[in-house]
Amino acid sequence: MDNHQLQALLESMTLKEKFGQLTQITGELYVGKVDDEMVETGPAYSRHMLEGDSLYTIGSVIGASSAVMTNRIQSEYLSKSRLKIPLLFMHDAIHGYKTIFPIPLGLSCTWDERILRQTAEETASELRAAGIHVNFSPMVDLVRDARWGRVMESFGEDHLLSGNLGKAMIKGYQKVREGRISQDGVAACLKHFAAYGAGIGGKDYNTVDMSHREFFDYYGKPYEIALQEKPKFVMTAFNTFNGVPVTANRWMLKDVLRGLYQFEDLLISDWGAIGELRKHRVARDGKEAAELALEAGVDIEMVSTFYLEHCEDIASRNPALMQDVDAAVLKVLQLKNELGLFDNPYADESAEETVILNAGSLAFAEEAGRRSCVLLKNDNDALPLREEHKNVILLGSYARTRELLGNWACKGKFEDALTLEEGMRLADASLSVSAFETLEDCPKDVLERCDYFVVTIGEHWGQSGEGHSSVHLELDEEQKRLIRAVKQTDVPYACVCFSGRPLALQDIVDDIPALLWCWYPGTRAGAAVASLIVGQSTPSGKLTMSFPRYSAQTPIHYNEYSSGRPANASSYSSRYQDCEIGPLFPFGHGLTYTGATYSDFSISGHGIKENQDLKVNFKIRNPSRYDYSEIVILYIEDLVSKAARPMREMKAYQVVDVPAYGEVNVDMSLSLEDLKYLDANLQRTVEPGSFHIYLNDLERPVFTIEH
Amino acid sequence: MDNHQLQALLESMTLKEKFGQLTQITGELYVGKVDDEMVETGPAYSRHMLEGDSLYTIGSVIGASSAVMTNRIQSEYLSKSRLKIPLLFMHDAIHGYKTIFPIPLGLSCTWDERILRQTAEETASELRAAGIHVNFSPMVDLVRDARWGRVMESFGEDHLLSGNLGKAMIKGYQKVREGRISQDGVAACLKHFAAYGAGIGGKDYNTVDMSHREFFDYYGKPYEIALQEKPKFVMTAFNTFNGVPVTANRWMLKDVLRGLYQFEDLLISDWGAIGELRKHRVARDGKEAAELALEAGVDIEMVSTFYLEHCEDIASRNPALMQDVDAAVLKVLQLKNELGLFDNPYADESAEETVILNAGSLAFAEEAGRRSCVLLKNDNDALPLREEHKNVILLGSYARTRELLGNWACKGKFEDALTLEEGMRLADASLSVSAFETLEDCPKDVLERCDYFVVTIGEHWGQSGEGHSSVHLELDEEQKRLIRAVKQTDVPYACVCFSGRPLALQDIVDDIPALLWCWYPGTRAGAAVASLIVGQSTPSGKLTMSFPRYSAQTPIHYNEYSSGRPANASSYSSRYQDCEIGPLFPFGHGLTYTGATYSDFSISGHGIKENQDLKVNFKIRNPSRYDYSEIVILYIEDLVSKAARPMREMKAYQVVDVPAYGEVNVDMSLSLEDLKYLDANLQRTVEPGSFHIYLNDLERPVFTIEH
Repeated sequence: MDNHQLQALLESMTLKEKFGQLTQITGELYVGKVDDEMVETGPAYSRHMLEGDSLYTIGSVIGASSAVMTNRIQSEYLSKSRLKIPLLFMHDAIHGYKTIFPIPLGLSCTWDERILRQTAEETASELRAAGIHVNFSPMVDLVRDARWGRVMESFGEDHLLSGNLGKAMIKGYQKVREGRISQDGVAACLKHFAAYGAGIGGKDYNTVDMSHREFFDYYGKPYEIALQEKPKFVMTAFNTFNGVPVTANRWMLKDVLRGLYQFEDLLISDWGAIGELRKHRVARDGKEAAELALEAGVDIEMVSTFYLEHCEDIASRNPALMQDVDAAVLKVLQLKNELGLFDNPYADESAEETVILNAGSLAFAEEAGRRSCVLLKNDNDALPLREEHKNVILLGSYARTRELLGNWACKGKFEDALTLEEGMRLADASLSVSAFETLEDCPKDVLERCDYFVVTIGEHWGQSGEGHSSVHLELDEEQKRLIRAVKQTDVPYACVCFSGRPLALQDIVDDIPALLWCWYPGTRAGAAVASLIVGQSTPSGKLTMSFPRYSAQTPIHYNEYSSGRPANASSYSSRYQDCEIGPLFPFGHGLTYTGATYSDFSISGHGIKENQDLKVNFKIRNPSRYDYSEIVILYIEDLVSKAARPMREMKAYQVVDVPAYGEVNVDMSLSLEDLKYLDANLQRTVEPGSFHIYLNDLERPVFTIEH
Repeated sequence: MDNHQLQALLESMTLKEKFGQLTQITGELYVGKVDDEMVETGPAYSRHMLEGDSLYTIGSVIGASSAVMTNRIQSEYLSKSRLKIPLLFMHDAIHGYKTIFPIPLGLSCTWDERILRQTAEETASELRAAGIHVNFSPMVDLVRDARWGRVMESFGEDHLLSGNLGKAMIKGYQKVREGRISQDGVAACLKHFAAYGAGIGGKDYNTVDMSHREFFDYYGKPYEIALQEKPKFVMTAFNTFNGVPVTANRWMLKDVLRGLYQFEDLLISDWGAIGELRKHRVARDGKEAAELALEAGVDIEMVSTFYLEHCEDIASRNPALMQDVDAAVLKVLQLKNELGLFDNPYADESAEETVILNAGSLAFAEEAGRRSCVLLKNDNDALPLREEHKNVILLGSYARTRELLGNWACKGKFEDALTLEEGMRLADASLSVSAFETLEDCPKDVLERCDYFVVTIGEHWGQSGEGHSSVHLELDEEQKRLIRAVKQTDVPYACVCFSGRPLALQDIVDDIPALLWCWYPGTRAGAAVASLIVGQSTPSGKLTMSFPRYSAQTPIHYNEYSSGRPANASSYSSRYQDCEIGPLFPFGHGLTYTGATYSDFSISGHGIKENQDLKVNFKIRNPSRYDYSEIVILYIEDLVSKAARPMREMKAYQVVDVPAYGEVNVDMSLSLEDLKYLDANLQRTVEPGSFHIYLNDLERPVFTIEH
């Protein structure tokens, strides 16, 4: 259809049909409860609203998937709908649909936009084959507190990296060609606008309060960046922002999102968030809630039906809103048209078999899994295994489990996942590999032959994710006992950890010679991790979130502001007296097996001026047999400015492919814009002065420049 | 002198003499290092600045005390000073000078303005006798995070209570009669302006960031209230506020403190804070630091000399500042005049003996200590001792220590303090009392006779206070073992805890039948606590800070905002999944031995209108033999409002004296003003709707009213 036809369609719609397009429900009302696989059952809607005609005015369905199921719902819907506008199907494929990739926090440790983009591309292909049109991803909420369970869905604590990786995923999902989402792409939904990651104490859904400066400089930045890629949707956050729930927050949604950040597409609430305005106690009832959300600019209501239910009242009380409603409905129709649904509302039921879990996706999932792992510690090159290590025992709860997908694994199935034990056998058939929970479980002869232990530790996948905030980030006692028992054996060992969040390891880290942090790597977990353990590949990931030493050393992040009494040995400095200074493992930390070195640093000048970027140039030499990707991170330190600044600010990074035994030149650049910051009056500014430049190492600057 | 004379004196001053009046140093430069008791040694000033004439332009000295010492410094100063303007002596007597009262957090648990005021009055008398004119107290920084060591100096988490108690202390210090500080009063210094208690993660000196709404509604409120009592000084906070260090923050100091809060007297920096603007990296050097602070309105520089050092440069670069400087100097001269220093700059060296540590002060310190204690738990009336308990063993590290003064105990001496063991003997001479560290230390015969254990637990006084932020709020293992070992004996027992902050007791609380929280009670600690243990008096304090269950359940406070998913058994609610909901002991919690009951509730109407307050009336019946002070706390809950509100807001409280076997009527009232809140545009507002009213109990409302 062309825009005139869409406009004509809009004009033919009743008020109820319009609000129906702005309402999203779960699918079981059309086909009954079928199967956990196929239809997600939502809350009990007020049935009277969704019986009869209303049900056939609805615009979109959440949670139903597979070509067969979406077609069944679509066909039932179209058969009874007056205007026969096809349904949109939306889903939460956070890190894959059936082929599961690493959790987003893991993916972010690759720092590699190519990896993130391809993850999204593969996911989009599977989703589209399964009849889905819109994906509720990526999430770019900035995080600084490992207590929050949803850090697993984030890209960590840096705003630039989070924004860029979000942008890469949006590109990957939407696969825009000639201005349209392609037939194997899905509309992306950027979430959760805004500052959902700043809930006090890391408690999910909790109050968010901050200065506008903090918002625009940090928490708002990832959205601002990712929005450049024009996601078709933005989702509102559950939290309040400075006292007003975001879903009813006009400043946040109109002034910032629509105004400043120039978002023009569809704004959808989070699950039940409009109804929850009553729990926030800013709305007396559903009607007030609906009106507040509409006034704030929320286009689509997710899994509640207050828009639809109260549309007549709202239209008569507040006729000015109808212009916004018409504009929103038109955008829904345009999207359906762009996706080709008016031409063919059905998914091809034969496509899933070739698209889903195909060899290419799985191979890529393995690569992504490998690249996500971060080697945090490796005393005396305890990893990888050496030639003499032939008899390997895997210990702990993660040695033979398939539950390595991580939370929010969509339709991923454990039976499709590889265990670490299987991965080890695949990686090196010459190894003798066995796996037990504890040392006591090992048969005596196996134990006697053992020349290497791999101790698997971590946190169950269900302990992180939405609603799973924690006050205990330490390993449980049983795991610590296991590590200490292995240490007693004097057999070489390393620990590999599976976790959805940073854990607090101060009290055990000295007993761990080598620590490989694997997050949750997804369907190919076992193979990905094993290839690093046996040394087929080198770990190359770097942390995107600081690791606290103890649970209560939170929040913590690398770009904290300078204080007037910077932490030092003195009692009167900004530190905890019963905790070493700084994180256990900082942002940007990650080892490799390569022994690569940096040299031949040079810069193009002593300063930066308008339109005169600074070029930073150096060499990386790789003396090892590993082809790998080196992550180079450049930070600045503004020595004096009118407002307090972070001690380190990441301003540039590159993922550089370095061949085995090779050497590469790296060029990075800094512009005047990179030196600017928001002053107390929210103006971007830079004052004359000195800036240190750091490469990877947060302690020692490589250059000092002037502006 | 009259104002004309002071003005003439001002006009006769050189630039250096003016800036000298705005400079505060430690006293050893005048008399050499004498004695820890007498002269506090400050940082190494730039000696060249303070040799010769400059030293004799200085306006005030910090940390030197005793009549003899201050007189010695004053006399040396006056002998060499051209204009012979007497020095002001200032000191940090946070909870007493030599007679030490409970730490402020303990005092706040009395909720009793009379107690706070008298504490300040007694302290002022001792200070003035010791030659001191200005006291750096009270601190009204709002606190929500027990990790911060300075919670011990605070009045807890409620803004109204903090403000009112601060006000009471200012009144007590200044003892204003006929518009002047009386001869046994001292000028009060309200600190630390502003929001020093909101440092991220409870880390001292750390970054503070919040919305203006949060500031004006909560963090700013205690200062706003306390300023009504017109303290002569306000001290700036160490922290940044929304990116700008407070000591250089014009918005905070000029727009808010001087403008909105109408403070007209002297603004002093905290210790070294002007120099620390360099560490904050907003000033290149001392000159820039001095200029920034002056421009922000800081009148007096504490223990650094950048004002003095750069006065000529500043005056020539920024002549407009000189008007402010003259105004500040005039205020200093006026205060010296008000204090009578131009008439007699010396302290009466014979006064200390009668004033300091006199019987009246000590008796009051004991009362204050008793009233500060909070009975947190008392299963089966495990406290107080019963008649049959004749052989009592005190266990643990706090049984025979005199170190019960708490941090910042000024010139208080341990040897003047009473141990708990001594207190027990004083309280009941018929008891057989012995005290040991551990059960193993107890002689067998003593142990066999024992019919009651008092287990002393807690945190060493040095673990809280300035610079002593902690990530571990749990009891140490040794103390937990002691409690569990005592439990095994089957002899009745109770725990008394000494601590500068709330501790996290979830993992041990079930092993504690009765828990008396004593904070640090001061010089009369032993007697105060013993009288409660033996049942001479009943505990009556109530908590002013919520107790977290675990260290990482911080920050926590009773007046948190409602969220859209209030904490409940569900995974998808605002809670930690590995921690019970809410604090272990909430704000307002505190038991007595009285069994008192409330009844006969009535209200004057169903609502509140302009100029028509609501009266709440009820009776308290005390069936016990204890005269005591019942703390009654009234909260409201605004059921629906345009912005998110706390679930409970304390709006009124009373400390009601209830005689033994008596009954009292209590009247409380609520005005329309009490229902108002700051909306998103910072306007105070109230909308029509329902409000619940709670008395003490945070769970069940006693009334619902309409507006």
